[in-house]
Amino acid sequence: MAGTLITLDLVGIFVFAIAGALVAVRKDLDVFGVLVLAGTTGLGGGFLRDVLIGATPPAALADWRYLLVPVTAGLLTFVFHATLGRIERQVEVFDAFGLSLFCVAGTLKALDHGLGPVPAALLGMVTAIGGGMLRDLLVGRVPVVFTGDLYATPALAGAVVTVLGERADLTPVAVAFAGAGVCLTWRLLAIWRGWRAPMPSGPASV
Amino acid sequence: MAGTLITLDLVGIFVFAIAGALVAVRKDLDVFGVLVLAGTTGLGGGFLRDVLIGATPPAALADWRYLLVPVTAGLLTFVFHATLGRIERQVEVFDAFGLSLFCVAGTLKALDHGLGPVPAALLGMVTAIGGGMLRDLLVGRVPVVFTGDLYATPALAGAVVTVLGERADLTPVAVAFAGAGVCLTWRLLAIWRGWRAPMPSGPASV
Amino acid sequence: MAGTLITLDLVGIFVFAIAGALVAVRKDLDVFGVLVLAGTTGLGGGFLRDVLIGATPPAALADWRYLLVPVTAGLLTFVFHATLGRIERQVEVFDAFGLSLFCVAGTLKALDHGLGPVPAALLGMVTAIGGGMLRDLLVGRVPVVFTGDLYATPALAGAVVTVLGERADLTPVAVAFAGAGVCLTWRLLAIWRGWRAPMPSGPASV
Repeated sequence: MAGTLITLDLVGIFVFAIAGALVAVRKDLDVFGVLVLAGTTGLGGGFLRDVLIGATPPAALADWRYLLVPVTAGLLTFVFHATLGRIERQVEVFDAFGLSLFCVAGTLKALDHGLGPVPAALLGMVTAIGGGMLRDLLVGRVPVVFTGDLYATPALAGAVVTVLGERADLTPVAVAFAGAGVCLTWRLLAIWRGWRAPMPSGPASV
Repeated sequence: MAGTLITLDLVGIFVFAIAGALVAVRKDLDVFGVLVLAGTTGLGGGFLRDVLIGATPPAALADWRYLLVPVTAGLLTFVFHATLGRIERQVEVFDAFGLSLFCVAGTLKALDHGLGPVPAALLGMVTAIGGGMLRDLLVGRVPVVFTGDLYATPALAGAVVTVLGERADLTPVAVAFAGAGVCLTWRLLAIWRGWRAPMPSGPASV
Repeated sequence: MAGTLITLDLVGIFVFAIAGALVAVRKDLDVFGVLVLAGTTGLGGGFLRDVLIGATPPAALADWRYLLVPVTAGLLTFVFHATLGRIERQVEVFDAFGLSLFCVAGTLKALDHGLGPVPAALLGMVTAIGGGMLRDLLVGRVPVVFTGDLYATPALAGAVVTVLGERADLTPVAVAFAGAGVCLTWRLLAIWRGWRAPMPSGPASV
C-alpha cells in the first residue's frame, strides 16, 4: 500500500509539474524558469502544508527522488512543449488525477499531525491547489483557481470525504478511493460540462 | 481578560476578512476566490508570524472556530457586497481597530516565544499588515501598504509601544490599551487628515 | 573564521538590500515600501531556507543587528537613490559577491540540519536567489531570475561545489572559497559577456 501511495504521489507531482512548465514556456521564461515553475507547481502545495503544520523539512526535501520528478517533467516540457501543448486536454485529465490524490494525501497527513477535522480538510485542499496558486503568483497572474474554474471545490469535497471516511474508521484504501473518487468525478464533470463557480451578482461598487 | 482578547481577535479577523472579500468582488473573482481572499486577509498575518517563529500549526488551524469567522465574513460580503461597498469608509475605521489589535497581539506572541524586542515589534507589524499584503499579492497588485497610505507606520508604532510597555512591567491590560491606542489614534488621524508616507525625492534614475 | 563569515553575511545582506531598495524607488513606493523591499531582498532568501528546514525563528529574527543592516541600506538608498542608480553596474558586481556568499552559507546550513546533498544544494540556491524573487513578487513583476539572466545557475553551481567540497572533507575555508569562487566567476563572466540562459525553441502553442 505504501509503495502504491508513493507511486501515485510521484505521478501527481509529475503531472502538476508538466502543467506548471507549460505555463512557463508560454510566458517566455528561460530553462531555469521552466524548471522552477515545474518544481513549484508539483511540490508547492505539499511545501505549504508541511510548513503550516510544522512538518519540516518537507518530505520532498528529505528525499532527493522527489526532486528528480519535477526536474524531469520540466526538462521534457522544455524540449517537447509543442507536442504537450497539443494534448493539453489530456494533460488536464491527468491533472485531475493529481488533484484527487493530493487532496486525500494532504488531508491524511494533516490528520496524522493531530489537526482537527476542519483544518485538516482545509489543508488537504491547500495541498491540492497550492502548487498551482504559487505558480500563478510567480508568473504574475491572478490564480486561475479564483476565476470561475471549478477546481478548488472538488478538492475540498474530496478532503471532506477523506475526513469523514477516517472518522468512520474505513480502511485506508477505502478512504483513499472515496475521497479521490469524489474529487475526480466532480472535477472531470466540471471539465466535460464546463461547470463554473458562482460569481458575485450585480456590479461591484467602486 | 483572555475571553476579551479572543473576542477582539475574532472581531479583527472578521473586519479584515470583509476588507479582503470586497477586494475579491471588485476583481471579479468567483465565490471561492472571495472566500480565499477573506481567509488570507483575516488570517494571513498571524500565519506569517507563526511560521516565522515556529509556532506551528498556527492557532487558526488548531481551532476550527477561527476558520468559521472569515468564511462567514466572506459569504456575507459575497451576498451583500453592494451594501458593504457603500459603507467602506466605516469599514476602514473597523479595519483600523483590527490593525491596532493585531499589532499588539502579534508583538505579545513574539515576545512570549522568546524573541528580542526589535524582532518582536517587527513581527507585531507583520501580523497587522501581513494579511493585507498577501491579499494584494494574490490579486496581482502592489501591496497598497507600499504606496503612500499611512498604514504600516501606525502598526509599527503600536508594536513598539507594546514592547516598551512589557519592558516597563505594565499590566497586560495597560500594555494592550497603550499599544492599540497609539496605533488606532495615528491610523484614524491618517485616514481623517489624508496623511501620506514620504516618497523618494526627485526622479528615479533608470 | 566565524567573525569573517558573519561580516561577509552582513555585507551580502547590505548589498542585496540596496538592490531591493533601488527597485522600490523606481516603482514609486513610499519610504516604508523601500524599507520592506530592502529587508525582503536582503533577508528573504534566508527566511525561506530557515522556514523550509524548520530552523525557526530565522537567525535574522533572533539577532536584531541583522535587522539593522537592511534598514540602514534602505534609508541610504531612499536618500541617495540618484547616486546609487548611476553606479548600478558596480552594485551588480557587489550583488554577485552576495550571491556567491549566500549560496555557500545556505548550503552549509542545510547540510548542518541533516538534509541530503541534493536538497542542500537546492536550498543553497534558494537562499541566494529567494530574496530577489520575493522582491519581484511584491512589486508585481515576473522574477527577473526567470527571464534569461544567468543568475540562478551560478548560484546552483556554487551550491553543488559546496556540497562536493564538504563530501571531500575539505577544510571549511577551502569549501567556502571553492563554492563562492565558482559562483562569482560564472556570474561575473555572465554580466561581462552578456551570457543568457537557453529559451524554449519555437513558438509556444496556446
